[in-house]
Amino acid sequence: MTNDTQNFYQQLLARAKDLIVLGSAASLVHWDMETVMPPKAVSLRSEQLALLSSISHKMGTDSEIGRLLQTITKSSEYERFGEVEKRNIHLIQKNYDEQTALPEKLVSETARQQAITVNTWKQAKAAKRFDLLKPDLEKLLDLNRQAAEILMKVKQTRTPYDALIDIFEPKMTADTITLIFNQLQQGLKELLAKIQVSPNQPGPSILKHTVPVEAQRKIAQVLSQTLGYETHTAKAGGRIDETEHPFTEGYYDDVRITTHYYPDAFSSSVFSVLHETGHALYEQGLPQKWKYQPVGSPCSMGFHESQSRFWENIIGRSREFWTALLPKVKQTAAPKLDTLELDSFVRAINRVAPSKIRIEADEVTYSLHVIIRFQIEKELFNGKVSVSELPALWNEKYAEYLGVKVQNDSEGVMQDTHWPSGLYGYFPTYALGNIYSGQITATLESDIQDWRGQVAKGNLNAIQEWLISNVYSFGDLYDPADLIRKVTGHSLDAEPYLSYLREKYGGLYGF
Amino acid sequence: MTNDTQNFYQQLLARAKDLIVLGSAASLVHWDMETVMPPKAVSLRSEQLALLSSISHKMGTDSEIGRLLQTITKSSEYERFGEVEKRNIHLIQKNYDEQTALPEKLVSETARQQAITVNTWKQAKAAKRFDLLKPDLEKLLDLNRQAAEILMKVKQTRTPYDALIDIFEPKMTADTITLIFNQLQQGLKELLAKIQVSPNQPGPSILKHTVPVEAQRKIAQVLSQTLGYETHTAKAGGRIDETEHPFTEGYYDDVRITTHYYPDAFSSSVFSVLHETGHALYEQGLPQKWKYQPVGSPCSMGFHESQSRFWENIIGRSREFWTALLPKVKQTAAPKLDTLELDSFVRAINRVAPSKIRIEADEVTYSLHVIIRFQIEKELFNGKVSVSELPALWNEKYAEYLGVKVQNDSEGVMQDTHWPSGLYGYFPTYALGNIYSGQITATLESDIQDWRGQVAKGNLNAIQEWLISNVYSFGDLYDPADLIRKVTGHSLDAEPYLSYLREKYGGLYGF
Repeated sequence: MTNDTQNFYQQLLARAKDLIVLGSAASLVHWDMETVMPPKAVSLRSEQLALLSSISHKMGTDSEIGRLLQTITKSSEYERFGEVEKRNIHLIQKNYDEQTALPEKLVSETARQQAITVNTWKQAKAAKRFDLLKPDLEKLLDLNRQAAEILMKVKQTRTPYDALIDIFEPKMTADTITLIFNQLQQGLKELLAKIQVSPNQPGPSILKHTVPVEAQRKIAQVLSQTLGYETHTAKAGGRIDETEHPFTEGYYDDVRITTHYYPDAFSSSVFSVLHETGHALYEQGLPQKWKYQPVGSPCSMGFHESQSRFWENIIGRSREFWTALLPKVKQTAAPKLDTLELDSFVRAINRVAPSKIRIEADEVTYSLHVIIRFQIEKELFNGKVSVSELPALWNEKYAEYLGVKVQNDSEGVMQDTHWPSGLYGYFPTYALGNIYSGQITATLESDIQDWRGQVAKGNLNAIQEWLISNVYSFGDLYDPADLIRKVTGHSLDAEPYLSYLREKYGGLYGF
Repeated sequence: MTNDTQNFYQQLLARAKDLIVLGSAASLVHWDMETVMPPKAVSLRSEQLALLSSISHKMGTDSEIGRLLQTITKSSEYERFGEVEKRNIHLIQKNYDEQTALPEKLVSETARQQAITVNTWKQAKAAKRFDLLKPDLEKLLDLNRQAAEILMKVKQTRTPYDALIDIFEPKMTADTITLIFNQLQQGLKELLAKIQVSPNQPGPSILKHTVPVEAQRKIAQVLSQTLGYETHTAKAGGRIDETEHPFTEGYYDDVRITTHYYPDAFSSSVFSVLHETGHALYEQGLPQKWKYQPVGSPCSMGFHESQSRFWENIIGRSREFWTALLPKVKQTAAPKLDTLELDSFVRAINRVAPSKIRIEADEVTYSLHVIIRFQIEKELFNGKVSVSELPALWNEKYAEYLGVKVQNDSEGVMQDTHWPSGLYGYFPTYALGNIYSGQITATLESDIQDWRGQVAKGNLNAIQEWLISNVYSFGDLYDPADLIRKVTGHSLDAEPYLSYLREKYGGLYGF
């Protein structure tokens, strides 16, 4: 290859690196806002975030990037680039095309309307009045529809909604999701029915111990460290801090998790820490050689969620995990949890009970919450449902799928921040994550046959290394549909996840 | 004034605001690095800081700023701008002229050499070998000399060294500093002689209590809150965190102080917290109406230091302050400090003893450390002293001014990070701060005659409000020489500071 073409490629990578580094700085500023920021700083912080985002937009739409892309892709030497280089070029092109396609006015108006709508949502949720939210939600939805129409052309998707899904789960479509969610929903429905008629129901009361926050902090450290996430060593690349709604944020060598400690519900932080550690391990396990390159990113939001839910649920709610960890946790919290006993603890943390709130849902019903949201979103963007019809549709589906009666819209359609925050097409990735995690576990199981035995001994090394080699090492080299095939040899399929659930809950509930 | 001219001015302010907001974000990223950053993140962090600084440089040298400045200052309407507008224009012009005058290559080479030299300094200091530092320090000094030569022309200063001083203390010159430092040095020399022959010497042993870090954290909160710095309320705009070398960082509604807790030397964090709180109060007390404008900044590094040293020393080491605070501190640390007694505590924290290390120096000898550094810097930039002559010159002056014998260069010329960090012209601002603080205190005293009585009751309101009205409210409206005249009615004068010291130490040492 000529030096010129190589040189153009390096220039392109340098610009991509700047965008990545700037994004990581903005992400740090956001982390600070959600964890340690003094309350008075709110308005300064929004100025900082808005400026960083506008600088990023300017850098990302610089016409020089377009010229470099043009020169490289039209060059007769393009075909001589390797797979990684081509993927980098593809990801840069995708980002450039999408960012330049959206008019700046639409982007800034959407950002403005988003901030307004989140604020309205908080008030409407507190007042339990959907009518207060409706006008702003309609405006925001309209702006997102306009963006989706534009992105549909750039991304060449069949529908505007597909263009939004593609932001979080590249190349995934509502049609594919509908098929796989139907399969999942049917399986969950049958499983839930069996669980609900079982005479063998655990009580949740065993989890109602009071554990001081200081002890919970230590438990969090023990758990995340067991999973391989370092926070207190000289080579630590992580931290655990406190926030309202737990999240993970960071890049490679600085990936921070957050949690919320409730003195009277210690298991809440236990599972949020396992969940967020799963996210962090994925980020930290990306190939070092791809740092600062577009390919050095997680594959998709669905894959991200597959990792958080793998560690939270498949490992973190397994009898084997607690065989090894319960003694340590009891010791750390001593004497508060001294009476906890393995069997009843494992049953309590796996108690299945349909509820109205997604983030409190158990492993079996969780995906049903997500499926409801996906089905409604699809209709919203199809134009078959209007904003004013949302509450009734929501409540109807909750009654039908989960058998619960929503009393007011704050515990119904207004419970999540996603829609008022302008996140459409995001929800399905939660259940896709479950599905991926089932397929990945099945493959892991055939590669490391005694993995459960190792977990019971508190030895997670083999699993960690397997995930690094088989999932994290691919970074963003493939779109999710290709990656799942690469990792498991199969295309997207809900059956392994359903089998996992059937076997686990069959055991717990005795059927 | 026509809308056009107003419009150009607003455009200029908008660009200045972007630079300020970006700077505040970079400052947050830096704060994070020095306080909570996981150790592995070092290299990512330097990428982030380098990128933010390069973006800031690009934004600050955008030729559109030059065009706007040209249009506004050449406009026939320029004279109709008010004092504040003209100051904003002046400050923007100054920053633009200086930033555009320095070739990008020199800026980036200096940044690179700076990082290298700091690193070398750490190793050389650990090894107690100045010869290891010498080559890098020479290179760095040479780059700074080149910059100083360029800035000298832009700033129209008499010497290159004056151009560097001007960065930290606008319009101040080495000639003026020499005069005022001679006055200061003479006064300190006489005072120190009297103190040293006094039979009435306090022992420091009283401060050697072990106070657990947790109790020290609470003391820090009590002290900073007493000064009016809020960290734990719903309208708090501050935080106290831990770091290696205490500093203050932030902007208006988010100004954070840091400290270091030594279990066996609790007074270290006590005085660093009072010092840093002084810095923070200045930043937080700037006029809200000038937020995001260049005029909404502290006047100079010297004025900044006048505030930190006012609260640390003039208030914070006064008998009156501890009359009110010692009971609270003892209660907070109970039972660790129960035996502390006011008289001996006040004498212990004001013990005068010439030493080799600046940051451990007492109030009387501190400025002598600074004067030594200033005299050496001046000769360095005059070309009268070379880098290899630094250690000998340093040790000679320490012997002469402080009567101490430096054993090795790590406790001598290599003790501070300033020179290896490329900070030349910075040191004098420490002693200028002392001088300003003396003048400001004299004026405060004539305005609020019973201020010491109020302090003894723990009531600092009147002082806080006086400082806001008489110092902070001017922001960066005037250069320091003008501001000190505005605040006190007098030009720069070391006598008030010397009188304050004479009276205080005369009382303590009985002469």
